[in-house]
Amino acid sequence: MLEKQRLVKRFADEVVESFITPLLEGQRELFNAIQFINKAHAVMLIEQKIVSEDDGKKILKALFDVDKLGKSAPLNPYLHEIYSNIESKVIEWIGADVGGRMMTGRSRNDLYACAFRIVVREQILDIMNEVTGTIETLVNQAEKHYDTVMPGFTHTQPAQPTTLGHYFLGLVDSLDEDRTRLKDAYNRTNRNPLGAAAFAGTGFFLNRKLTTELMCFKGVVENSIKSVGDYSYFLETLSSLAIMMNNVSRFMADLVPWTSSVYGMFEIDDSFACTSSIMPQKKNPFTAETMRAMAGEIAGSLMQGLTITKGIPMGFNFDLLCFGGWSLNHMRDVKKAMRVLKGLVATMVVHKDAMEQRSWDGFSTATELADRLVRSKGMSFRTAHGVIAAAVRMAIEAGKNSLDAELINLAAKEVLNKDIDFKEEIGVNVAQIVASRKSAGSGAPKEVMRMVKSRRKFIATEKDSLEKEFRRISNGQASLDRLIKDNFAI
Amino acid sequence: MLEKQRLVKRFADEVVESFITPLLEGQRELFNAIQFINKAHAVMLIEQKIVSEDDGKKILKALFDVDKLGKSAPLNPYLHEIYSNIESKVIEWIGADVGGRMMTGRSRNDLYACAFRIVVREQILDIMNEVTGTIETLVNQAEKHYDTVMPGFTHTQPAQPTTLGHYFLGLVDSLDEDRTRLKDAYNRTNRNPLGAAAFAGTGFFLNRKLTTELMCFKGVVENSIKSVGDYSYFLETLSSLAIMMNNVSRFMADLVPWTSSVYGMFEIDDSFACTSSIMPQKKNPFTAETMRAMAGEIAGSLMQGLTITKGIPMGFNFDLLCFGGWSLNHMRDVKKAMRVLKGLVATMVVHKDAMEQRSWDGFSTATELADRLVRSKGMSFRTAHGVIAAAVRMAIEAGKNSLDAELINLAAKEVLNKDIDFKEEIGVNVAQIVASRKSAGSGAPKEVMRMVKSRRKFIATEKDSLEKEFRRISNGQASLDRLIKDNFAI
Amino acid sequence: MLEKQRLVKRFADEVVESFITPLLEGQRELFNAIQFINKAHAVMLIEQKIVSEDDGKKILKALFDVDKLGKSAPLNPYLHEIYSNIESKVIEWIGADVGGRMMTGRSRNDLYACAFRIVVREQILDIMNEVTGTIETLVNQAEKHYDTVMPGFTHTQPAQPTTLGHYFLGLVDSLDEDRTRLKDAYNRTNRNPLGAAAFAGTGFFLNRKLTTELMCFKGVVENSIKSVGDYSYFLETLSSLAIMMNNVSRFMADLVPWTSSVYGMFEIDDSFACTSSIMPQKKNPFTAETMRAMAGEIAGSLMQGLTITKGIPMGFNFDLLCFGGWSLNHMRDVKKAMRVLKGLVATMVVHKDAMEQRSWDGFSTATELADRLVRSKGMSFRTAHGVIAAAVRMAIEAGKNSLDAELINLAAKEVLNKDIDFKEEIGVNVAQIVASRKSAGSGAPKEVMRMVKSRRKFIATEKDSLEKEFRRISNGQASLDRLIKDNFAI
Amino acid sequence: MLEKQRLVKRFADEVVESFITPLLEGQRELFNAIQFINKAHAVMLIEQKIVSEDDGKKILKALFDVDKLGKSAPLNPYLHEIYSNIESKVIEWIGADVGGRMMTGRSRNDLYACAFRIVVREQILDIMNEVTGTIETLVNQAEKHYDTVMPGFTHTQPAQPTTLGHYFLGLVDSLDEDRTRLKDAYNRTNRNPLGAAAFAGTGFFLNRKLTTELMCFKGVVENSIKSVGDYSYFLETLSSLAIMMNNVSRFMADLVPWTSSVYGMFEIDDSFACTSSIMPQKKNPFTAETMRAMAGEIAGSLMQGLTITKGIPMGFNFDLLCFGGWSLNHMRDVKKAMRVLKGLVATMVVHKDAMEQRSWDGFSTATELADRLVRSKGMSFRTAHGVIAAAVRMAIEAGKNSLDAELINLAAKEVLNKDIDFKEEIGVNVAQIVASRKSAGSGAPKEVMRMVKSRRKFIATEKDSLEKEFRRISNGQASLDRLIKDNFAI
Repeated sequence: MLEKQRLVKRFADEVVESFITPLLEGQRELFNAIQFINKAHAVMLIEQKIVSEDDGKKILKALFDVDKLGKSAPLNPYLHEIYSNIESKVIEWIGADVGGRMMTGRSRNDLYACAFRIVVREQILDIMNEVTGTIETLVNQAEKHYDTVMPGFTHTQPAQPTTLGHYFLGLVDSLDEDRTRLKDAYNRTNRNPLGAAAFAGTGFFLNRKLTTELMCFKGVVENSIKSVGDYSYFLETLSSLAIMMNNVSRFMADLVPWTSSVYGMFEIDDSFACTSSIMPQKKNPFTAETMRAMAGEIAGSLMQGLTITKGIPMGFNFDLLCFGGWSLNHMRDVKKAMRVLKGLVATMVVHKDAMEQRSWDGFSTATELADRLVRSKGMSFRTAHGVIAAAVRMAIEAGKNSLDAELINLAAKEVLNKDIDFKEEIGVNVAQIVASRKSAGSGAPKEVMRMVKSRRKFIATEKDSLEKEFRRISNGQASLDRLIKDNFAI
Repeated sequence: MLEKQRLVKRFADEVVESFITPLLEGQRELFNAIQFINKAHAVMLIEQKIVSEDDGKKILKALFDVDKLGKSAPLNPYLHEIYSNIESKVIEWIGADVGGRMMTGRSRNDLYACAFRIVVREQILDIMNEVTGTIETLVNQAEKHYDTVMPGFTHTQPAQPTTLGHYFLGLVDSLDEDRTRLKDAYNRTNRNPLGAAAFAGTGFFLNRKLTTELMCFKGVVENSIKSVGDYSYFLETLSSLAIMMNNVSRFMADLVPWTSSVYGMFEIDDSFACTSSIMPQKKNPFTAETMRAMAGEIAGSLMQGLTITKGIPMGFNFDLLCFGGWSLNHMRDVKKAMRVLKGLVATMVVHKDAMEQRSWDGFSTATELADRLVRSKGMSFRTAHGVIAAAVRMAIEAGKNSLDAELINLAAKEVLNKDIDFKEEIGVNVAQIVASRKSAGSGAPKEVMRMVKSRRKFIATEKDSLEKEFRRISNGQASLDRLIKDNFAI
Repeated sequence: MLEKQRLVKRFADEVVESFITPLLEGQRELFNAIQFINKAHAVMLIEQKIVSEDDGKKILKALFDVDKLGKSAPLNPYLHEIYSNIESKVIEWIGADVGGRMMTGRSRNDLYACAFRIVVREQILDIMNEVTGTIETLVNQAEKHYDTVMPGFTHTQPAQPTTLGHYFLGLVDSLDEDRTRLKDAYNRTNRNPLGAAAFAGTGFFLNRKLTTELMCFKGVVENSIKSVGDYSYFLETLSSLAIMMNNVSRFMADLVPWTSSVYGMFEIDDSFACTSSIMPQKKNPFTAETMRAMAGEIAGSLMQGLTITKGIPMGFNFDLLCFGGWSLNHMRDVKKAMRVLKGLVATMVVHKDAMEQRSWDGFSTATELADRLVRSKGMSFRTAHGVIAAAVRMAIEAGKNSLDAELINLAAKEVLNKDIDFKEEIGVNVAQIVASRKSAGSGAPKEVMRMVKSRRKFIATEKDSLEKEFRRISNGQASLDRLIKDNFAI
Repeated sequence: MLEKQRLVKRFADEVVESFITPLLEGQRELFNAIQFINKAHAVMLIEQKIVSEDDGKKILKALFDVDKLGKSAPLNPYLHEIYSNIESKVIEWIGADVGGRMMTGRSRNDLYACAFRIVVREQILDIMNEVTGTIETLVNQAEKHYDTVMPGFTHTQPAQPTTLGHYFLGLVDSLDEDRTRLKDAYNRTNRNPLGAAAFAGTGFFLNRKLTTELMCFKGVVENSIKSVGDYSYFLETLSSLAIMMNNVSRFMADLVPWTSSVYGMFEIDDSFACTSSIMPQKKNPFTAETMRAMAGEIAGSLMQGLTITKGIPMGFNFDLLCFGGWSLNHMRDVKKAMRVLKGLVATMVVHKDAMEQRSWDGFSTATELADRLVRSKGMSFRTAHGVIAAAVRMAIEAGKNSLDAELINLAAKEVLNKDIDFKEEIGVNVAQIVASRKSAGSGAPKEVMRMVKSRRKFIATEKDSLEKEFRRISNGQASLDRLIKDNFAI
């Protein structure tokens, strides 16, 4: 018998040590959100006369005292999770008869569902803030380099010259699309599941609209089964972040070689690099590599979420609590990545000469020359393409690495069997080629400047509305505290 | 020398057989989209006077002839992809001097980027159509079973009774949220990348607004580097589908056991089941299992996309073409799954008696009884919770599987050391318990009917707007054909 | 200027706070491994006379002092990683002229490659240890329940009766296969990359065999580019764990409903369950759900690894260091899961009566009856299948839930249009049916007992060899310390 | 009523069209394996006297007739899968009384479990064959370029010079490790699940050893629940392939830029490249990009498998059949990738001059110079590292891109405040530096040649044993056919 008790004790300890303690430690990040919910729910219970004002005040008072203990207070793992720790404190202070009423019409299922939504919406806002900052920094760089000529690549091969401003704006627009995805995820996240109880609702006459307002949600997750069991908003958020980080990773896939001595087009600031322990000359862009790794981290995190949720039944399952807790850590890494990215972009040095020089690589003017044959000689594009391709072949055979009129005329002779007498001075200036690309969205300096202005205006509006929402949400808890103090004289 | 030629030939054949032919076969699905683009681009080239009306008409005429050959025409793999096959046909028919002009100011990069967006938007609309149909079917079932009592589960354990209507509406709301995600993905997909050329734009004075309108896009993907290289919209689409299919899979995780003889709550129609080859009595829900598998398929597809795009540089890389082609197949499976799901829901038989009987499982009325102690005896919820927990323990020890007033009074005596004289008739009717849960979003029949009506109204509006968009898009190509015939007398 | 300095400072601080500090904290787990390497490398440098015995002794002495500081000593994030912190301590103590020699012929690339392999091999051994323990516990349970009849399922539908021993042995064999995968991963992990320097090898005449022996590796990773850049062994380890955890998750997918009041076949010990905050009667198997979630966690971790490594060039990239650090945490969760699983299996209570009762569900004897028709009436299996299927249909129509001889005769009449005069007493005892299944690997008690014995013998051997390896490896560092003290009088 | 029939018909058709037909088409790839099983099982039934020799012969005869129809024969989707189609043909030909006996003691569950293992083992052998060929080709190239100097990279930055042979051998060793993983997966795959029936075994006295031998398996999957439900071997195979393809993808991440005009170190044969539709000068390595994409494809396929299997109960579920079918397609793509890779490596042209020239990039001799200071001046490595780092800084400031003795002496003066009088002629020849790196596994030509020889010997042995197994397995079916013809005079 005693032996059995010992065994059970040992197993209980093992479960606590292995599963509960790490969970509990992670739940400290939910502390503020849970307190927000506790207070809003208590106010609502009083308003609805489900709990008397007297009892309600005692509960609210105790909750403020819990605030004072703070999120770092010791937690008892045998109570399994953080809410029960808080409740047990409250009951210790004001007795079970009063303190036990704070859970009326509520379950941990809707409580945690609500706490996660509160934390995720904050995280999304934080990240959107960082993204907007990064976008702004990129627009600044795009403006600065609106006419800095650089080589453009397809298939990682030099293809045609363009401007660095053009390149940066491509990233700006990708990140901006990412931002809109986050915004959509935010709107689906920012809904109140509280009031669902375990999943079945309750016979207490709750006022879900009131808690929705008090906790600054945009609306309610109405169906109570969905409220506690559907974490799709979380998967969507992770997915939006994974897509965004993929764009960042692709930027790094460019940047990392471009900062090498081979390309020499960029140099990143020392604060974003490290030296080698063995190679005295090296400057390793470890921040860029970490961002790439974090793109993989968040993709894996999404896969964790999809795998965890796929096989479980509807409604609440404990798996969701694990998933939620782990994912918040991954989200925090994305925030860090975006913050570092902004700094990296702001401080990197552009080697304009190397950029321009590299713009000549790989007969990068060939497309433009084909286009010119179309325009000046009236050839079809496919024919012109054939002539220039022949000219490139001839140049390579002759050991040259750029084209000239003579070669083109020779090639035309071979391909078309006639003299075309091409005379245009070519290749004097890649900048001219770039400047001539006037189609909407292209890399001509004029077009770049037009886009810079349009993006700047747009960003200003978005930033403004983001900041408003940010303020609304981040002040929410303080506002509720004030409201409680004002109304219940605590 | 001859030996070398033979080797090169062999390797070329191997590449064609291994990589190109499968790609080409898949590209047949892009045929319509590419023709749509070819025509819109040709019209624009004429309007912009980049190509003369005469030449333009010849090109358009040839493109209509390509239509007649159709998407099943033989393809030459040595031309690598389907567009080149089309162009080579056109040139064969009208000569390189004219036919070679259809590629003016364009590259395969923006062409394929555009073709994928056209096909993906069609697929999304198709799937949204199926989802809406499924939602409607579920609402019908919810209405039919607005007061059918069933057991509700958390942690896969019977927890509290609710109504089947309530359960179905939970799924309705989850799928509806999924639908909004698809809509958002649609809006980011439905943008025109054509006009980006290889990535650098072009010196030809293209009119991107015109092709945008002709091809029914909502707007342009402006920056030309982003146009050809950013497939985030595709990742988002896959992610939205993966999240939706996860919700379907979770529904199946409920449904599959519930159709077994253990629960006996549902029976699925014979068309959705198969018999066992060895066990004569069995009816296996293989359609439900296939849908579950397809949830895994699309999650894996998303992972393919994230993994493929993560490491490549900005701009166009061939990896994107592979990714796009594969993903379209996975999207088609999702469409199939949603179609089958609708039928499965529409035809399944509900065993109401078994459902009600199962509602008593696991002392499922316990929460309600605790709530009643709160209301009638003024206990705090935590205290009432303790009393009922003790009553359940006593019942189990006494070999009973439900609670009665006597047990509760005994338990109260034990826990609180006082007589509470609880008298309410309990457990007579789980239906009464369910009916008393009046909080918003809960399973009370009245609340279910309210939600059914609200969902029905909402769906009608959404269906209407979806159908309009569907018609607009699916008529787009025919409209352009008519416009061409009217304006260019072909 | 000052402004710029401030900016740079701020960015450096941000990088440190965001990227470096979390990395450093994680690297504490590598401390022991790094010290193991430091000492082995130093001994080798002395043996090879690359470093003088005097200098070498000073280095070794300093390394022992580093041991005393321990892995929790404060770390300077501006030195970026933990090795540099150690080296800087050593140099602080014994000067750069001597301390600076410990890095001779070495780089952080091979150092960290080696440290990860040391930690991963330890983790694998630890996990194999837990797996073996779990297997043993399952074999014990299988023996105990060698004749406990239970329902077997396919498609989650009751199918045929079998024994619980049979079921447990299925899991035993799956976990044992998982164990062999881990063993193979271990053998590929347990190889020494040290001596590769940054990737290019070195002109110093290193003795890689000596460090291999000193650090208890089975062999060397010879090619120095592979040594520093190939983390495939790590991916394989994660994959082996993900596959194993999938098997655990599938066990949980059975166990969780089976512990519910619906099936009532198992009860898990209170230490492995938790109560509901709102439903007083509930006992939620949160440990089972956590294990399921951890299966998703490790699958996602594998995906992180695949995604992170896929796009990077050969050789060392910083992404690998991030990947390694994160993955170790996930591995630790697997270890926890396996420990808890063992306890859960050891303590769970089997409700034999409920199991036997459930064995009748769903006409589970139908296959056996068809087989009997084959044997006693000489029918072909397909014909017998048809007769029994008809009998089941008739039974359902008649509201019966089991078959009898009368029904079968009626069905035969209908299907074959002849009297078969089936007389066997059927369905008296599912135990008899189970006992008659004598084919190798089936659930007959006799067969179960045979397999139990065979597994027990096998496990004993494996456990023995595992323990030897465990001891060899875990004593490795102590042995080296002793060797150093003996040989260099420190 | 008629309406209901119509509806049911429509739904049945939909299920067939959406789910069954695609599955059936895919199952044609299992045709040979299923026939192999059918024959082996029939022979065993005869040997065990479960089926009379007369009946058995008729069945075998019919099975040979099925062979003649072949895998492309029309299939009836209303029979759901391919085995039932075969069985129904057999019954059509020889009647239900005899033909119906071929399923005795068997279920589709163990049948398909067995068929998948047969096909997967063939696929693994095929792929191992391609891998071995690729490895051999790489060894040939390594030998050819044992002293071709090239730049080595870490963090994608030029780091130190090495030899191309060294680089290729790194890949050889990585692919060889991949090969061993496949071999291990093969051994766990090559086991016989037949005889498990639906999962419960059977009362017929089957001889599982006999079918194991007839079908060339290495052993049996004993426990019958594991036999039908555990597809871990398949997950392992996918994982091994994903890891291998990741190594290929990383090779491509090097190769793609190295073939560009920026590096100019390699040129791939025209058969492995394509031209640009718009840029006449371009040669795009689309095969390399496709291989990269296929690495993502197979990683996603693994994720499909993990996600699909994670949530399902033990035993057979239909999800497994879907998973199996899809995965075979992905495996076939890996085979193609490896075949193309071999050709690409065999034909690529190495630009030795560009390679050597690039070897000087980024002060790549710096580590060697630090090592020389250690050796000739007795400095500690850390001190020497500091001196050279200073020299590099000075060189950059002076606009130089390589180091000389003067700079090093200046730097030493600055750092150490003393004259070191460094005189060695440096940097004359990166080849000398490379040759001096004599540590095991490094890039010195001598070391490369040693490894080439060792790998060549090893590969020969492995190829030999692979070919034997290949022959054994691929002849298996023909041997059984012969055995049947000899013994049963068919």
